Amino acid sequence: MLHKHCAHRRASLEFARIEQRGIRCCYHGWHFDVDGTILETPGEPEDSKIRHEICQPAYPARELKGLVFAYMGPPEATPAFPYLDSLELPGHDLVPYSIHSPCNWLQETENAIDPFHSVFLHGRVNGPQFPGLEHFVELPVCAYHRRDAGIVYSHARRTGDLVTLRFHDYLMPNLAQNGGMFQKMSQPRVFGRTSLTKWVVPIDDTNSRKFGWRHFNDADEVLRQGKRDAVGWESVGFYGQTTGRPYDEQQRNPGDWEAWTSQGPINVHKREHLGATDEGVALMRARLRRDIRAVAANKPIARPEGTPDAPFLTYAGDTILRIPPSNDDRALLDQLQRTVAEIYFSADALNGEARSERIRRDIAARFPTGVEVTS
Amino acid sequence: MLHKHCAHRRASLEFARIEQRGIRCCYHGWHFDVDGTILETPGEPEDSKIRHEICQPAYPARELKGLVFAYMGPPEATPAFPYLDSLELPGHDLVPYSIHSPCNWLQETENAIDPFHSVFLHGRVNGPQFPGLEHFVELPVCAYHRRDAGIVYSHARRTGDLVTLRFHDYLMPNLAQNGGMFQKMSQPRVFGRTSLTKWVVPIDDTNSRKFGWRHFNDADEVLRQGKRDAVGWESVGFYGQTTGRPYDEQQRNPGDWEAWTSQGPINVHKREHLGATDEGVALMRARLRRDIRAVAANKPIARPEGTPDAPFLTYAGDTILRIPPSNDDRALLDQLQRTVAEIYFSADALNGEARSERIRRDIAARFPTGVEVTS
Amino acid sequence: MLHKHCAHRRASLEFARIEQRGIRCCYHGWHFDVDGTILETPGEPEDSKIRHEICQPAYPARELKGLVFAYMGPPEATPAFPYLDSLELPGHDLVPYSIHSPCNWLQETENAIDPFHSVFLHGRVNGPQFPGLEHFVELPVCAYHRRDAGIVYSHARRTGDLVTLRFHDYLMPNLAQNGGMFQKMSQPRVFGRTSLTKWVVPIDDTNSRKFGWRHFNDADEVLRQGKRDAVGWESVGFYGQTTGRPYDEQQRNPGDWEAWTSQGPINVHKREHLGATDEGVALMRARLRRDIRAVAANKPIARPEGTPDAPFLTYAGDTILRIPPSNDDRALLDQLQRTVAEIYFSADALNGEARSERIRRDIAARFPTGVEVTS
Repeated sequence: MLHKHCAHRRASLEFARIEQRGIRCCYHGWHFDVDGTILETPGEPEDSKIRHEICQPAYPARELKGLVFAYMGPPEATPAFPYLDSLELPGHDLVPYSIHSPCNWLQETENAIDPFHSVFLHGRVNGPQFPGLEHFVELPVCAYHRRDAGIVYSHARRTGDLVTLRFHDYLMPNLAQNGGMFQKMSQPRVFGRTSLTKWVVPIDDTNSRKFGWRHFNDADEVLRQGKRDAVGWESVGFYGQTTGRPYDEQQRNPGDWEAWTSQGPINVHKREHLGATDEGVALMRARLRRDIRAVAANKPIARPEGTPDAPFLTYAGDTILRIPPSNDDRALLDQLQRTVAEIYFSADALNGEARSERIRRDIAARFPTGVEVTS
Repeated sequence: MLHKHCAHRRASLEFARIEQRGIRCCYHGWHFDVDGTILETPGEPEDSKIRHEICQPAYPARELKGLVFAYMGPPEATPAFPYLDSLELPGHDLVPYSIHSPCNWLQETENAIDPFHSVFLHGRVNGPQFPGLEHFVELPVCAYHRRDAGIVYSHARRTGDLVTLRFHDYLMPNLAQNGGMFQKMSQPRVFGRTSLTKWVVPIDDTNSRKFGWRHFNDADEVLRQGKRDAVGWESVGFYGQTTGRPYDEQQRNPGDWEAWTSQGPINVHKREHLGATDEGVALMRARLRRDIRAVAANKPIARPEGTPDAPFLTYAGDTILRIPPSNDDRALLDQLQRTVAEIYFSADALNGEARSERIRRDIAARFPTGVEVTS
Repeated sequence: MLHKHCAHRRASLEFARIEQRGIRCCYHGWHFDVDGTILETPGEPEDSKIRHEICQPAYPARELKGLVFAYMGPPEATPAFPYLDSLELPGHDLVPYSIHSPCNWLQETENAIDPFHSVFLHGRVNGPQFPGLEHFVELPVCAYHRRDAGIVYSHARRTGDLVTLRFHDYLMPNLAQNGGMFQKMSQPRVFGRTSLTKWVVPIDDTNSRKFGWRHFNDADEVLRQGKRDAVGWESVGFYGQTTGRPYDEQQRNPGDWEAWTSQGPINVHKREHLGATDEGVALMRARLRRDIRAVAANKPIARPEGTPDAPFLTYAGDTILRIPPSNDDRALLDQLQRTVAEIYFSADALNGEARSERIRRDIAARFPTGVEVTS
């Protein structure tokens, strides 16, 4: 990724010509390699040394499944790429998308570590917004599992004999994965996987842009809500995620986008009043402050680093068990999700299908009747 | 009137759900009463005290004839409502309207205490703009009657044997009432009443919004200029009051809106050069400075306070008398309007129809031939 | 030229009424003469002295061939008008135009003293942009001739036996004239004249507006590219000079406008890296700094002053000679353009057709075979 303005007279390289190798500024023809090396200054005298003395500012970038990632920090501190296991889930087809929000990046990303907004915004206040997720109207029992590079949180709800244990990943500072979104959750399942992988990236203090993939998955997507061509620039193809709806419709049934953008260009934290249900938001903010201080002090921070062979392991998705209610059912739900989380984490030495099989085996062993699917 | 941002996480209550009692935030379902009391924090634990410890900022508001008025000052200093006698004039139907101006509020409201702009803007420079008010082309004789809560000013003009004595109210800091606007002024009349009641409200230093009522009045409105459905948001249904006209039309025949907005986002007073004709503007600015200093010093200021039973008395409207010219006719006009003003003010102990009858009786007694209407 | 805001209450005179003599403010009818004298304050008392005590700020202005020029400096330092000889070239029809650029004025005007951008922007990077100027793809030999009021620069190129010597005028601080633009350059010619005369005028730090004339000239314009009705407000009728093209077209074939505006709202000079080819830009910036310091120190600066009878002499245009290549052809080109420049300058005592004839005679004498036109 090259700096926008040419090192010579600062014309924008958005108007440059793509060459077989690198790019050529339209104004005076300076030719840059992808790493910023100046290959040619064609108007300058042949013995000019200028191209050896300077370079075009450049940052390493890579393309992955339709998104481009650039690293803009000091080269000597380049972290490994955050290659997640969820990038290569069997049967998942990742379709890239990006959506702008006219507000500080923190507001949108906090939404991803707030399991209680789903109860109200997506369920109770104006009725359910996502088919398959009607159980959101129930208040969940939540657990926040602290991990090196972020927070895995789970929320448990009961529907008759079924207990849905929904896991989300929050990876510092701005990466989140949901549980399954386009699925029918009416039967036991073990270690279902995520439907969305997404980063919220600041543009400036009061503008941000989400970049991510929606996971299309024929096996899971029984409700057939997904259309690939509805996913892309400014659209992810499901309710309430973008600008542009008529104002009266926004008012009658606001979605996520209305919630986080309406906190204002920059939310004023000292005028908030956090409650018990804001534990996730508070936890994430504390982590973020800790990481900011560490970076400022030149100390290392944990990051979600991985490779295709040894991907960073994630947990987002749903496990559904058939477990009858107990007298103290909320305590039971909490115990269930902690047990399942422990089984998830105990398979961290494995990877891919081996890891999934180990998790399925251990959960089936621990809850033999809980995993029986009725026909 | 509640503060826009929810006390919890500051999502906007413009996306909240109106409940039987109060309103419910879309994001996490907090439920507020109209006075800001928190009725419910439904995700929080049952024993949570948060709803008793804080409240949603709220201001008392009342609706009156289609406009909503809020008081945002200290509760202990709440003034009485400015209930004007003109809100209940017999046969008057008040239709609310509101118009934005991209300039400081003072510019528009000063227009309402400037009887001389009518001569030029509405009459001489590009021809008469308001049917029924063609006599505006004559330079009036003006008198400014200082009152506790503002200024009543009168301007007198002669057309043949008829003398039109036009009264306007200016009530501090930003309330004005015109004389009659949609009337045929070709016969004597006594104590005609206003056609417009309006406040100019600052939005910020360089934006303001007028809120008011146009008075529809079948008895007076002989010219039938009025259409109720042309009065409302951004429209008051007569010439030159709003944005949106083609620029060349604005240039060929500018109206009030062009005059006050073209003074710039904030007029620079030190670059003005006020003349004798700016007496009203100067008087009002002096009052405003005096009131600002009084408020800053915690001293009381006079306000137009009233109730439906004891409304604040106003005087805007027209008295037309048949009085032949004298040798020093401008001195005569001035004396006439001061005499009539004195008769108006001498009826201040009365109210409603009793007051109007007293004024009519006294004027008829003082000018027996002046009030005769020819058939 | 009068100040925009009326001296009375500061309503904008854009809404004033043009009178037989001067202009009348719409708001209160004050009547101003073209020099700012107040002719009438019609609402004020007859004995008012206000009109003698103040005036409307005014600047001397003159209209010339469709452009209006105003002088806004101190009256005692009023310079002569920059009346150029190029305003009255035989057969030239000057059509005025004006184009906005959303960037600092210096960026656009620097383009006019940069002969190398033509090689790349108008030739090599995306192919030739101007029919008749396909030889721009060759790197020129340039010479910068320092003159009192600015810089005349020449650039020489060879096409077979033909040598094109192209002269441009840069007159401090912001006036430039190109060589011929709409011409077929395939035969010798002597002292061809300019096709464009233009000023880049700052509006504020990040906006500027070019004002100029395109020279229509039936004798020269053999390519018939010119349409008078395509020249005017925001258009000059040839490639790449204005906003409004589709972004992908701008990217595929950017023009001058994209080049200078894409340097950003204000180019950051300390992040540029000038090379040998930027000699003209560097020279002009040094002149500009010198002139700014002189003006600040109240010292005189050279200006392009002239009158219709004794116009300021300019040189922009093309001389094309038939001269076979030499072993050191670039040295030959440089010598040729310096010789021709000297002949141009040696005729400075003459004017009009006499000057042109002297130049033609001297060049024909110096290069007898060089000026022969083949049939």
